[in-house]
Amino acid sequence: MYKEILKHVTSKIELTEDEQLEFIGILSEQRIAKRQFLIEPGQTVDCEYYVVKGCLKAYYLDEGGNKHIIQFAVEDWWISDFEAFFGNLPAQLYVEAIEDSVLLGINRDTLETLYKRISKFERFFRIKTTNAFVALRGRILSSLQKSNKERYLEFCQTYPEIEKRVPNYHIANYLGIKPESLSRLRKEMF
Amino acid sequence: MYKEILKHVTSKIELTEDEQLEFIGILSEQRIAKRQFLIEPGQTVDCEYYVVKGCLKAYYLDEGGNKHIIQFAVEDWWISDFEAFFGNLPAQLYVEAIEDSVLLGINRDTLETLYKRISKFERFFRIKTTNAFVALRGRILSSLQKSNKERYLEFCQTYPEIEKRVPNYHIANYLGIKPESLSRLRKEMF
Repeated sequence: MYKEILKHVTSKIELTEDEQLEFIGILSEQRIAKRQFLIEPGQTVDCEYYVVKGCLKAYYLDEGGNKHIIQFAVEDWWISDFEAFFGNLPAQLYVEAIEDSVLLGINRDTLETLYKRISKFERFFRIKTTNAFVALRGRILSSLQKSNKERYLEFCQTYPEIEKRVPNYHIANYLGIKPESLSRLRKEMF
Repeated sequence: MYKEILKHVTSKIELTEDEQLEFIGILSEQRIAKRQFLIEPGQTVDCEYYVVKGCLKAYYLDEGGNKHIIQFAVEDWWISDFEAFFGNLPAQLYVEAIEDSVLLGINRDTLETLYKRISKFERFFRIKTTNAFVALRGRILSSLQKSNKERYLEFCQTYPEIEKRVPNYHIANYLGIKPESLSRLRKEMF
């Protein structure tokens, strides 16, 4: 259960065996079935989640009932409603399982205590957050500078695991492309 | 020159006098006149910059010659081409001074050495990057859920200093609203 997350963390920071045990001690396992919600709008969001197994999506449902997928997550990724988690605000997003999923949650206050006890985790989460920030900026730039075809290809290259496991209309939604346009693109390409 | 940045940093982490001196020692002052470029596409980006005085914009120029403003910065903010800086990639953005500006640059490699010597800076930059990530996610969500009028009001409330100092057509560009629509909105409001 903890092998993957330890590998994930120790790829960025070195941890003694005691530190590894202390880290594992603050994780809470959560299992969630396909189509079930991990987070719903209005909820308090105390945790961010590492995906041990499964696949999830985070999306915003606008007033017209239109879904806007903000993020996918598969094994070795983190997911939450991050604005709500970091800002201590009510959730605005749904986080829903696309497959049966196993997650490890970290509570915000417990994480703050961990930072005080083992400051190396500041480094780990600084690096993770920086990567997430850069990816998000990159996504905005991509939408400005690339054609739909280029953006779909980029998505397939960057997230091959997600492309295999997530329905195409979800990917179209994430990219802000109409599903029928993505179908046409795929026909041209394959 | 260094009073503001020390106040800025010590609002998040405590530093001894020696640590403050060490931090100041790695900063490089840069003065840039109105309409001059701090960064241009294709350049290597080794620094991120703290604004001591002035006002700048970071933007992407697409193939059609259309400008897309990604970020503004005034006193007490940080600016760079962050994808390029963090990813050690050539710049894609222009960073241009809207007013004569005074900046303090931090070099990426020097910052990495600072992290090793004074690990509290991992915490400082983790908090700063988290805030930037949350603001960017918030901006994406705002564009999905709010009217142009609501987004302009939100901008004025969140960034009153920028609203005062930046031409309206820049703000329209940043919000992805046509300048004439913003003019109409402002007439209705004031």
